[in-house]
Amino acid sequence: MATAPSVSYSMTVRLEVPASGTSVSQLTSAVEASGGSVTGLDVTASGHEKLRIDVTIAASSTSHADEIVEKLRGVDGVVLGKVSDRTFLMHLGGKIEMSSKHPIRNRDDLSMIYTPGVARVCTAIAENPEDARRLTIKRNTVAVVTDGSAVLGLGNIGPMAAMPVMEGKAALFKRFADIDAWPICLDTQDTDAIVEVVKAIAPGFAGINLEDISAPRCFEIEARLREALDIPVFHDDQHGTAIVVLAALTNALRVVGKSVGDVRVVMSGAGAAGTAILKLLIAAGVKHAVVADIQGVVHAGREDLVAADPESPLRWIADNTNPEGMTGTLKQAVVGADVFIGVSAPNVLNGDDVAAMADGAIVFALANPDPEVEPSVARQTAAVVATGRSDFPNQINNVLVFPGVFRGLLDAQSRTVNTEMMLAAATALANVVSEDELNPNYIVPSVFNDKVAGAVADAVRTAAKAAGTTVTGSTSV
Amino acid sequence: MATAPSVSYSMTVRLEVPASGTSVSQLTSAVEASGGSVTGLDVTASGHEKLRIDVTIAASSTSHADEIVEKLRGVDGVVLGKVSDRTFLMHLGGKIEMSSKHPIRNRDDLSMIYTPGVARVCTAIAENPEDARRLTIKRNTVAVVTDGSAVLGLGNIGPMAAMPVMEGKAALFKRFADIDAWPICLDTQDTDAIVEVVKAIAPGFAGINLEDISAPRCFEIEARLREALDIPVFHDDQHGTAIVVLAALTNALRVVGKSVGDVRVVMSGAGAAGTAILKLLIAAGVKHAVVADIQGVVHAGREDLVAADPESPLRWIADNTNPEGMTGTLKQAVVGADVFIGVSAPNVLNGDDVAAMADGAIVFALANPDPEVEPSVARQTAAVVATGRSDFPNQINNVLVFPGVFRGLLDAQSRTVNTEMMLAAATALANVVSEDELNPNYIVPSVFNDKVAGAVADAVRTAAKAAGTTVTGSTSV
Repeated sequence: MATAPSVSYSMTVRLEVPASGTSVSQLTSAVEASGGSVTGLDVTASGHEKLRIDVTIAASSTSHADEIVEKLRGVDGVVLGKVSDRTFLMHLGGKIEMSSKHPIRNRDDLSMIYTPGVARVCTAIAENPEDARRLTIKRNTVAVVTDGSAVLGLGNIGPMAAMPVMEGKAALFKRFADIDAWPICLDTQDTDAIVEVVKAIAPGFAGINLEDISAPRCFEIEARLREALDIPVFHDDQHGTAIVVLAALTNALRVVGKSVGDVRVVMSGAGAAGTAILKLLIAAGVKHAVVADIQGVVHAGREDLVAADPESPLRWIADNTNPEGMTGTLKQAVVGADVFIGVSAPNVLNGDDVAAMADGAIVFALANPDPEVEPSVARQTAAVVATGRSDFPNQINNVLVFPGVFRGLLDAQSRTVNTEMMLAAATALANVVSEDELNPNYIVPSVFNDKVAGAVADAVRTAAKAAGTTVTGSTSV
Repeated sequence: MATAPSVSYSMTVRLEVPASGTSVSQLTSAVEASGGSVTGLDVTASGHEKLRIDVTIAASSTSHADEIVEKLRGVDGVVLGKVSDRTFLMHLGGKIEMSSKHPIRNRDDLSMIYTPGVARVCTAIAENPEDARRLTIKRNTVAVVTDGSAVLGLGNIGPMAAMPVMEGKAALFKRFADIDAWPICLDTQDTDAIVEVVKAIAPGFAGINLEDISAPRCFEIEARLREALDIPVFHDDQHGTAIVVLAALTNALRVVGKSVGDVRVVMSGAGAAGTAILKLLIAAGVKHAVVADIQGVVHAGREDLVAADPESPLRWIADNTNPEGMTGTLKQAVVGADVFIGVSAPNVLNGDDVAAMADGAIVFALANPDPEVEPSVARQTAAVVATGRSDFPNQINNVLVFPGVFRGLLDAQSRTVNTEMMLAAATALANVVSEDELNPNYIVPSVFNDKVAGAVADAVRTAAKAAGTTVTGSTSV
């Protein structure tokens, strides 16, 4: 798929050009002729004979950026200076920092923030541990925990290389929900070790956001941590995705006028996200779901499943989907289906497959960056199409969910997160799109819609209080 | 020891008083008559008949604060409102937070800070892991790790109650050395578990500051972590204290005109701080040291040591001190000694003991809040006296050391911290006090002296580079 120039492949090129003549216009023409896009042009120094110009250019890939630079080098009279990658520039030294809430100007400040005054606060917490949620950062702090085993679409790149994602996640927590999150990137991929480490570091946090941990380990890690800890544990790749998908599906069904209990849903992908989506859809009332993985449609009689561990996630899928006992391939399964949800791999379907779905078909092709079916092709016959990409309408983006979910959990001082809270979050997110706004190209709000996090937080907080999972005896500050 | 009113026992009392008459002056008189000190008085509302006044008062203890409030309640015409403890107020919601270095205003920002742009940065680090020190927060980030087993003088109060100290420490790291530190309070006091947890969380940090972990576990934990990790591990209670003590001793010896190789040093206390001080003093050239613990002078023939594990810290002390084979009590050992260093318990010595020391005696009585000997008594015969308290001259305060030490280690990208770096830090700290400034009441600079952290950092960075412990192939940003 051809990609448009994007700011995520954006660079600033410093150039010296003759002060007179048409050099500047030749520069912009050269960029445009190469398929790049000039997004800024600053003259940073000017003399009688020379101009120094910083041109900011969006390209569509790293190699495309290199091509553009070579084109600029060829413009008559131009001397090429430093080329800066804007994305890398933003990452220099990292993206987040720690700040003190109070100035430390003199000995008086020191004696309250630190010794000797701090001892009285410690003593108060030792006498009443719940006071930690009142007198420390615990109440507003979330650990963003990864082992680097399944980072974005990059795979098992390890904890160090996962840091930029975790820092970004922490920045988003702050931006959208005023939560203090800190990245914890683990130098182990052993399930037992991860469980022990997260249990050990839990006292200073009010929630654990697991991130980019590969399946099937992520299921066991999450389940064991939920059992062990008295703070909510949320694997965003699973549940964040599931909540946005349910919200988007809710609104897509409003668009096509179908009911969640009636539609036949076909999913491609049985990994972490797929399993979580499936469970939440079933909790929301989906009765006819079929899942296909790389070996085709999942059914109880499939060879690899007959012998599978009865506790395995795939076995759960076999036992809880496909009541009609369908067999065969994904392509066979989508014939006549109302909804396709892909969390798998690029281009597993084509336009004919989508055309063979039922009238008013809904297609969520979420593989990133290349979806399960080219969205513009799917849109020719499907009524509603959504992807994980920011350059198409209806982006399924976890940023719509995790800040508000944790805000609600933290405000409720909830000890856990459960399915009811996730269903409430999905409903709240869907409802941010009003009847007037709803249309096939607007089934989820923008991530910058400032109603989103608050609406999700309110719903989760209310659900947590209703579930009685909140800390008792603790008072809000 | 009677204590002066302190801001660490400071409160703000809201009062309503008649607008006319002498009520206000009666209030301040009542505070002063009770031994409190009025540090602020604000009229927050005024009417024809009534004034609302917020009076801020320093007391010398919690019970003293209660007494003062009762006195105020008794003043004619006064209606007592809310009483706020200023130290607790500063702790509400915690003292630190996470901040984003870049605004996230729109989709362009999002696509560079997070997906899809962040993927290129992750890939770069996966290809060259040392780039994590350039492109993530790792380079400037320190974990402040505790198990809550030996918090201040409060003992084993656990990880949750230790949080206010660790947050305060993080705030001091930022204030004095612009380091981003985050508290990690562990829900385990098992040595093996602590070692495993800290190893696991290390990838996101450039240094580990161990804090308030009880002896003897702290020795093994530190040694094993230093062995396992490629980032410096520094137990501040040991080494921070040792460095300040050595710096202070260096200057105290300048005051009395004695040489480090000649003096006889007697130490009280063989815990974490005592052992570290002893080792650093020996490395700095002290040849005649004797240590006493609760069972008296440590010597190789002492009953509990004959049978001791040859690897035990106390055994190390027996083998490396007391060359004359002195036996008996602490009080016997200090007779004729040049230097007394106490890191033990209140009031183990009296004025007669100090008077029995050599001429030009140096007394560091560091037990907190009540020193090994009343400092004003010690000062009657000793030439130089230092304590851990902020209300006497010559405060031995780790804040003088740990920010600069870590700044130097981080700037050098050092993989470890060793004795040479600590000696360099002590020399640098001592040298902040110039010949002109040096006197018996000024052997260490103020914690707010803005030369301190930079001088210590420079010395440590230089020593790290000389030791060749820095990351190779990595470039500073």
